[in-house]
Amino acid sequence: MPLKETLNNAHSHWMDGSGPEADIVISSRVRVARNLAQLPFPHLLSPQQAGQVIDAVRAAADSAAVREKAGELTVIRMNELTPVDRQILVEKHLISPDLLEDFERKAVVLREDEVLSVMINEEDHLRLQCLLPGLQLNEAWQLVNALDDGLEATLDYAFDEKLGYLTACPTNVGTGMRASVMLHLPGLVLVNQIRGVLAAISKLGLTVRGLYGEGTEAAGNLFQISNQITLGQAEEDIVAGLISVTRQLLGQERAAREALSRERKEQLADRVGRAYGVLKHACIMSSEEAMRLLSDLRLGINLEMIKNIPASLITELIVLTRPAFLVHAAGRELSPVERDVYRAKLIRRKIAAAQQC
Amino acid sequence: MPLKETLNNAHSHWMDGSGPEADIVISSRVRVARNLAQLPFPHLLSPQQAGQVIDAVRAAADSAAVREKAGELTVIRMNELTPVDRQILVEKHLISPDLLEDFERKAVVLREDEVLSVMINEEDHLRLQCLLPGLQLNEAWQLVNALDDGLEATLDYAFDEKLGYLTACPTNVGTGMRASVMLHLPGLVLVNQIRGVLAAISKLGLTVRGLYGEGTEAAGNLFQISNQITLGQAEEDIVAGLISVTRQLLGQERAAREALSRERKEQLADRVGRAYGVLKHACIMSSEEAMRLLSDLRLGINLEMIKNIPASLITELIVLTRPAFLVHAAGRELSPVERDVYRAKLIRRKIAAAQQC
Repeated sequence: MPLKETLNNAHSHWMDGSGPEADIVISSRVRVARNLAQLPFPHLLSPQQAGQVIDAVRAAADSAAVREKAGELTVIRMNELTPVDRQILVEKHLISPDLLEDFERKAVVLREDEVLSVMINEEDHLRLQCLLPGLQLNEAWQLVNALDDGLEATLDYAFDEKLGYLTACPTNVGTGMRASVMLHLPGLVLVNQIRGVLAAISKLGLTVRGLYGEGTEAAGNLFQISNQITLGQAEEDIVAGLISVTRQLLGQERAAREALSRERKEQLADRVGRAYGVLKHACIMSSEEAMRLLSDLRLGINLEMIKNIPASLITELIVLTRPAFLVHAAGRELSPVERDVYRAKLIRRKIAAAQQC
Repeated sequence: MPLKETLNNAHSHWMDGSGPEADIVISSRVRVARNLAQLPFPHLLSPQQAGQVIDAVRAAADSAAVREKAGELTVIRMNELTPVDRQILVEKHLISPDLLEDFERKAVVLREDEVLSVMINEEDHLRLQCLLPGLQLNEAWQLVNALDDGLEATLDYAFDEKLGYLTACPTNVGTGMRASVMLHLPGLVLVNQIRGVLAAISKLGLTVRGLYGEGTEAAGNLFQISNQITLGQAEEDIVAGLISVTRQLLGQERAAREALSRERKEQLADRVGRAYGVLKHACIMSSEEAMRLLSDLRLGINLEMIKNIPASLITELIVLTRPAFLVHAAGRELSPVERDVYRAKLIRRKIAAAQQC
């Protein structure tokens, strides 16, 4: 049973720090939107029809075609989970916050390594997701494509010869695909070039967000870059375009880091050292401060200024110190003050444990 | 030769963290002003007469009476020292900044452990000082008194039967004595009671200053309390009065620390932990920040939250990270930025060395 594992462990394969360009590219994600031909889009579904969608996907997920192409999957209805457990799935980026609204009619499909997941009855009947560490957009696309093929062997998708896959929101019509990369860009932030770089990206038809969705500032210098256009471009072209832009950003971020190492060596060492010292010894820490200091520490690890902490621990800590994970780890509700105390303690312990390995 | 030792080593006996009440009382000091009967006060001395004073004190310091009562002393003319070395004597509290002005006509007498010193041709011909760790005002007074007796066997002091010892400034006439204690009062600062407490002290005829003289704010929560009145009170009464006030302050500071430990435990642990982490890992540190963090760390050591650093190291670091000591340790002039880098490095090294013992 993968679920218990998922909830007790902050770690997902996407956080393990592997994959190409992992010093800057935290993760690569491909999501596709699919809908069943015979039923209204989710916002118009009756509870009974919503159940039909879930049952249809459950049957498809259990099919030999899916098992062969994508491995073993587990379907979990959202109402089987506690509110905290539902929130944890959001914090691990396995589902979107939208899946928490009207959750009685919604479900999630998970592979044990959490690389593949499917949201059922979110904005569309199905949203297939593949999430991998590092720059692996092609690999993510291939895995999503394999799962998609497996499901389509059973399910009848809403598809139009001219438009492509039909979706609840017209902005997803066509390929129904969103590809994205999560980048850690502290260098560009520190040399004050991030604004210009991101403005240029927007002009290429790409969208930039923070780690936790549209509303959040780019806390921890983590930026998600994704395609805006789904219509009129083949999936492979969308992926290739995003990879190309990502490679440009990698070059710019590395140049910024080199300039910092060369011209502001002491300031950089001071920043990294202070982050390390405070994370190791503070007893009260807000979410915002944790994100900021973990970003500084990650930069220090990548620049080999800090050597006995793996970069993957930073990604894990960013997820692990989100509110729902803290409540889950504590085993009870926490006041905001208690949360800050618990967060600091968890960070101290995890760093100490990593250093004893 | 004690001088080289003095300059290469920040450590003086007064910093060693011994003595009663050493958790709060850093040091106790007694100073007396004396003048030679046959010569004008220092500001009216010709260079030749200034040399006569130095020669007279040198002869007295070498006398059997002084050796027997106060031990072996070395006389050093200020113009034998480099500007940095002169500044170091100020930073170690062995001489006042005034001894640096017109230094060609001035000198200092030092005992090897730096417990006893005499400034020659500062405001008065002689200013005898005893500086001891912890609350040892009576002991300091007895040592100064013994040195004074030894010197008086050779020297002819300016003394008036009615007024007592005559001094250049009338505020010192009488006993010519200033007794002071240096207190670390972070608890009273944190519970916001320090203002009220110090206001009450001023009404008792006592003066409050920061660690480095009148002009400085009480950096590092270090407060020097001294008597204002020298006339009409016996030396023993001045000392007893200051001890009594100090004991009251000790009670108030301890009550504040207990209240903090009880009611703001996490905040206190956070404050101490952050100070420790930043001091151990920062690479750039201003003098002000160092004082603030060292104060927090000292409180943590006294409250046994930090166990592998002796409190005496904190006092030593406060002295060692003053500008002149840094220049001396670096062996060359330092820009303000370099000084902050050097200060941080020195603190990191000293703490690491203490923890390896």
